[in-house]
Amino acid sequence: MKALVYQGPGNTVWADVPKPAVEKPTDAVVRILRTTICGTDLHILKGDVPEVTPGRILGHEGIGVVEAVGSAVTRFKVGDRVLISCITACGKCEACKRGMYSHCADGGWILGHLIDGTQAEYVRIPHADNSLYELPAGVDESALVMLSDILPTGFEVGVLKGQVQPGQTVAIVGAGPVGLAALLTAQFFSPARLLVVDQDENRLAVARRLGATDTVNSATAPAAKTILEWTGQRGVDVAIEAVGVPATFEICQDIVAAGGHIANIGVHGRSVELHLERLWTHNVTITTGLVDTNSTPMLLKTVVSGRLDPTALITHTFRLEDVIQAYEVFGRAADHQALKVILTAESGG
Amino acid sequence: MKALVYQGPGNTVWADVPKPAVEKPTDAVVRILRTTICGTDLHILKGDVPEVTPGRILGHEGIGVVEAVGSAVTRFKVGDRVLISCITACGKCEACKRGMYSHCADGGWILGHLIDGTQAEYVRIPHADNSLYELPAGVDESALVMLSDILPTGFEVGVLKGQVQPGQTVAIVGAGPVGLAALLTAQFFSPARLLVVDQDENRLAVARRLGATDTVNSATAPAAKTILEWTGQRGVDVAIEAVGVPATFEICQDIVAAGGHIANIGVHGRSVELHLERLWTHNVTITTGLVDTNSTPMLLKTVVSGRLDPTALITHTFRLEDVIQAYEVFGRAADHQALKVILTAESGG
Amino acid sequence: MKALVYQGPGNTVWADVPKPAVEKPTDAVVRILRTTICGTDLHILKGDVPEVTPGRILGHEGIGVVEAVGSAVTRFKVGDRVLISCITACGKCEACKRGMYSHCADGGWILGHLIDGTQAEYVRIPHADNSLYELPAGVDESALVMLSDILPTGFEVGVLKGQVQPGQTVAIVGAGPVGLAALLTAQFFSPARLLVVDQDENRLAVARRLGATDTVNSATAPAAKTILEWTGQRGVDVAIEAVGVPATFEICQDIVAAGGHIANIGVHGRSVELHLERLWTHNVTITTGLVDTNSTPMLLKTVVSGRLDPTALITHTFRLEDVIQAYEVFGRAADHQALKVILTAESGG
Amino acid sequence: MKALVYQGPGNTVWADVPKPAVEKPTDAVVRILRTTICGTDLHILKGDVPEVTPGRILGHEGIGVVEAVGSAVTRFKVGDRVLISCITACGKCEACKRGMYSHCADGGWILGHLIDGTQAEYVRIPHADNSLYELPAGVDESALVMLSDILPTGFEVGVLKGQVQPGQTVAIVGAGPVGLAALLTAQFFSPARLLVVDQDENRLAVARRLGATDTVNSATAPAAKTILEWTGQRGVDVAIEAVGVPATFEICQDIVAAGGHIANIGVHGRSVELHLERLWTHNVTITTGLVDTNSTPMLLKTVVSGRLDPTALITHTFRLEDVIQAYEVFGRAADHQALKVILTAESGG
Repeated sequence: MKALVYQGPGNTVWADVPKPAVEKPTDAVVRILRTTICGTDLHILKGDVPEVTPGRILGHEGIGVVEAVGSAVTRFKVGDRVLISCITACGKCEACKRGMYSHCADGGWILGHLIDGTQAEYVRIPHADNSLYELPAGVDESALVMLSDILPTGFEVGVLKGQVQPGQTVAIVGAGPVGLAALLTAQFFSPARLLVVDQDENRLAVARRLGATDTVNSATAPAAKTILEWTGQRGVDVAIEAVGVPATFEICQDIVAAGGHIANIGVHGRSVELHLERLWTHNVTITTGLVDTNSTPMLLKTVVSGRLDPTALITHTFRLEDVIQAYEVFGRAADHQALKVILTAESGG
Repeated sequence: MKALVYQGPGNTVWADVPKPAVEKPTDAVVRILRTTICGTDLHILKGDVPEVTPGRILGHEGIGVVEAVGSAVTRFKVGDRVLISCITACGKCEACKRGMYSHCADGGWILGHLIDGTQAEYVRIPHADNSLYELPAGVDESALVMLSDILPTGFEVGVLKGQVQPGQTVAIVGAGPVGLAALLTAQFFSPARLLVVDQDENRLAVARRLGATDTVNSATAPAAKTILEWTGQRGVDVAIEAVGVPATFEICQDIVAAGGHIANIGVHGRSVELHLERLWTHNVTITTGLVDTNSTPMLLKTVVSGRLDPTALITHTFRLEDVIQAYEVFGRAADHQALKVILTAESGG
Repeated sequence: MKALVYQGPGNTVWADVPKPAVEKPTDAVVRILRTTICGTDLHILKGDVPEVTPGRILGHEGIGVVEAVGSAVTRFKVGDRVLISCITACGKCEACKRGMYSHCADGGWILGHLIDGTQAEYVRIPHADNSLYELPAGVDESALVMLSDILPTGFEVGVLKGQVQPGQTVAIVGAGPVGLAALLTAQFFSPARLLVVDQDENRLAVARRLGATDTVNSATAPAAKTILEWTGQRGVDVAIEAVGVPATFEICQDIVAAGGHIANIGVHGRSVELHLERLWTHNVTITTGLVDTNSTPMLLKTVVSGRLDPTALITHTFRLEDVIQAYEVFGRAADHQALKVILTAESGG
Repeated sequence: MKALVYQGPGNTVWADVPKPAVEKPTDAVVRILRTTICGTDLHILKGDVPEVTPGRILGHEGIGVVEAVGSAVTRFKVGDRVLISCITACGKCEACKRGMYSHCADGGWILGHLIDGTQAEYVRIPHADNSLYELPAGVDESALVMLSDILPTGFEVGVLKGQVQPGQTVAIVGAGPVGLAALLTAQFFSPARLLVVDQDENRLAVARRLGATDTVNSATAPAAKTILEWTGQRGVDVAIEAVGVPATFEICQDIVAAGGHIANIGVHGRSVELHLERLWTHNVTITTGLVDTNSTPMLLKTVVSGRLDPTALITHTFRLEDVIQAYEVFGRAADHQALKVILTAESGG
């Protein structure tokens, strides 16, 4: 089969590789219908994720059709259309029993990282019963690709850990795909105000279209000062960090109200300064986390019912075999006004 | 001043009575701008609430202008426009410290019940600092009258105690004003399906307009059977009882899914049969409660931000001096397709 | 092998039956070391549980040694000493993902009920990875048998659902093994007062020894009246029902304070009267539930650390082959001052 | 009357000052029976708390007898014996309604800080109804002084925000009075292991006596490394920081398990480094907070019932007029093996 193979920093190839097969009784093999590229894939390409070694097939998102299942797989059969979770969960270790699938002892984020991933014609999915979800009928399948990673990430790590409640004021710092996913799903809890910070005017415009009540461009305005003014110096109930650099975490510390929450989603490459000299009296909560994807069944219901429409996050579509071109567009997202790109293999197989 | 005075079962009069005055340092006197009639007032008129004795001024909802304050009132001053909570809270007893204002040792539901109420030109409000709320500017003031009682009741006793979550299936049994208030506020949490049961086609039509995804007329169809069919025999995550008779509580027991919640809002005159022989294995939660109105500040924010529009609950408007005529309309709600009626005293004073 | 085989109401036999074998990749076969008898087994014997058909091996509690595992079992290997949960969990259905193992689509309470159970020399355990727990070293193994069912039942269905908190007043109605398990585990949360109601003086004496601060014999004193007097007519924060008849559920309704909780553990054979005409204003929560056993890992830690000592619940020990005699003693518990009986097969195998 | 008056850094005097009087309807004046010195008082003396200006009477803990009450005080009358909370709460601002008394708009920590405090013969208590608690009879009154500040602080900011649960492993970094208060109250929730870190052998010995299962002296051993070894490199479920310097916050970050909590109690004078480059994937929660003292009624119940014995925290007793000598002992706590000192005025008045 064909797959996107990582060859080392800055180097991938669309190559012929052996088709995966069931290795354990709990495995399934899935033929990819659609997949996408994640910001994390760009980090891998830069060489920032040393666990990814040359020869690895990238990608951890997608939908497909079950091709084969192991003897212990009971929830899926050949021919089922499935959503692939970016997180593999054994369903039986201590972490999984707590619902913390991201720290599964035999899973977590392994696809396109420690084992071969989804930017390929086929992918092997370990612990298939706990790592795949039945695709609902009648829903745009590209939209469902957004449920592999970014929507549960924005929802669980941003909105749920941030404890967004009706009537609150919520700030989202960073309007990339994950920040926008937090923006969409924060609205499940009806905050009164949804403030979005970014340095890209196009993304702020998208944010306003997707429900932001106010936006501030931190490239041209002092974001924290502006938000404090908007809130009568009180600050926000929830600040969601969706960038991953010290400056944006600093904004969150500056704007969080007493009794408020900072929910970090951002992937940080270095430590940040925590202002305990000020925050120790402030009754705040700061949370971190990888996505567990245990909200996926719920998110599927909201898409089926029409409460959530993820299609607005998709800006480009490519054929799977054009994945390298897709990386170029996604890698220069600002230039292309790109959010998520869909790679489609439907004609192939 | 003029007020609606209860004279005993079936008998009220719009009469001259002494204007109330500040009696304790924590009192305020409020000039009524708008008030309304509650289903509970009809119960009182029938003689079902024996604590209400002849001579009592009825009414526990409304907005107005502060006329006088006691020496310990610090949050309000003469001239402030205020929302009157149906629940009086001292803010310092054990119940109030737990946020359970409905069981305040020196308050709770006393207006128009144990002390004189709001269907009058003026009303004395004990513990004013904890029982009044500043009216936001620029919002329809009739809409705000809905925040005295029915919106916090539907929200706190139905939606919050029922623990409505995104993606869930929620049934509301009873589409009177409080059931509709639960319907409106359940949407704060983005359930996937909102099923409404009633025997009045007009109310079901209103429910559909206000967000019900499906409705069933229990006068002409078997409500529980229908809902079980709609949910693949699984039942609903949350069943909100908003009528107060054994038959509707029975429906809730029939339709609640394993792990689900029954939130009782209905005012019950007699005991019901609880099917523990079936439900003991069912991991359900059944809750009861009077409104505490501690969600009022939050609800005000959602009205100001436009997330909640209570005006759809208002069907009729009368002048305050026509209150007896308003009772007639509200008392035959089905005939008049009446939900909430507004009584307005703005020209008077 | 030998096993206790149900022959129909009132009739069991200790008989030779085929030894179980692994049937599915997720199965294990366990050689029983110790087992016990549950009150539910007595119900089965009376014919109250019609799903149990003649030929069924009874029993759903015990510890043992793994004899064989299927190809998908990864957490246990032959020779491991294990605790058998009374609840079988597949770990991958909707209920299991919510932690509600009692409603597992391919499990729940099936041992000694819908499939053969533990009162035997060997038992087949489906979904072994999620239904067995590694036995900690150095702990009394009879004590650990109490973790198969009664301790998680008392804890999850009584204490956790009842939301016991430090400083509270808690009443436990029924001092049988499960009521006493609730009594032991309620102390994890340091209530100030633990009141126990029963009709058996011996059990009340045991309750006092295990931490009850006050006890009342409802055969000779008005339990509800007594408890209301003890609490200054305020009632209790949590009432745990551990009997399963209308009279004891009535006591719970009589004594629950405003804002309090009734946690039903009792197995009810018929409906009860729910006093909504009084409780509708009372802000109470009533919960029901089968045990999910997802607290088992935590309970094991408390036993290992010495915070919980379940041995006090064991009054008699028999050899496994004397199981019919053990049933006679357990069936006339009051006469024998019996709580839990241990059946030991250690010499056999 | 006599009082300890702050004169500027390093300088206090036991001086004659005017006796306080009721100034507002919600005030009470309390005659001090017993008071104590807090670590914060030492900070003030060093000049670290610039809001405290010369002339201020210090102290924010104590018990006493009500001498006078304002016209709006209803819960207390002259002659009542009361516990003084270190936090003043109006009971009616937004923060108080959320139970966040520490951020009361007209209160919070003001005693001995922004208004005169309790190291005096008399003290004026604003918002008396929400800031005083009735003293239970029959309890050691020195013990109750521990409920003014350190016990609710250790419990609320350490144990509750840290979400200590039965069976968990909890580390407390710092065994001063507040750390020990966290140690005592963590046991309300029955953790399996309670690890304590300090640099003072005497305090570690006290910690073991009060329930620590293991202790490590961070002056002589690598605390984080030791705790990771004790926990099989897994780390602790809850790390409670009770010192307030970067090094101890670093230990907490090193030892917190995935999914765990860091609860900061320490008073920090400068920022710390937060290792988001590592913790972003770690699903941790970090909390900060001032004590709200809304657990005080509950803590009183646990003392009355004997579940909590605070007397072990008291090492020295002085007469109130010897307060300056008491400061010398408390200021050199290690030399004197001092924890809390009691100042008693009972003979005086």
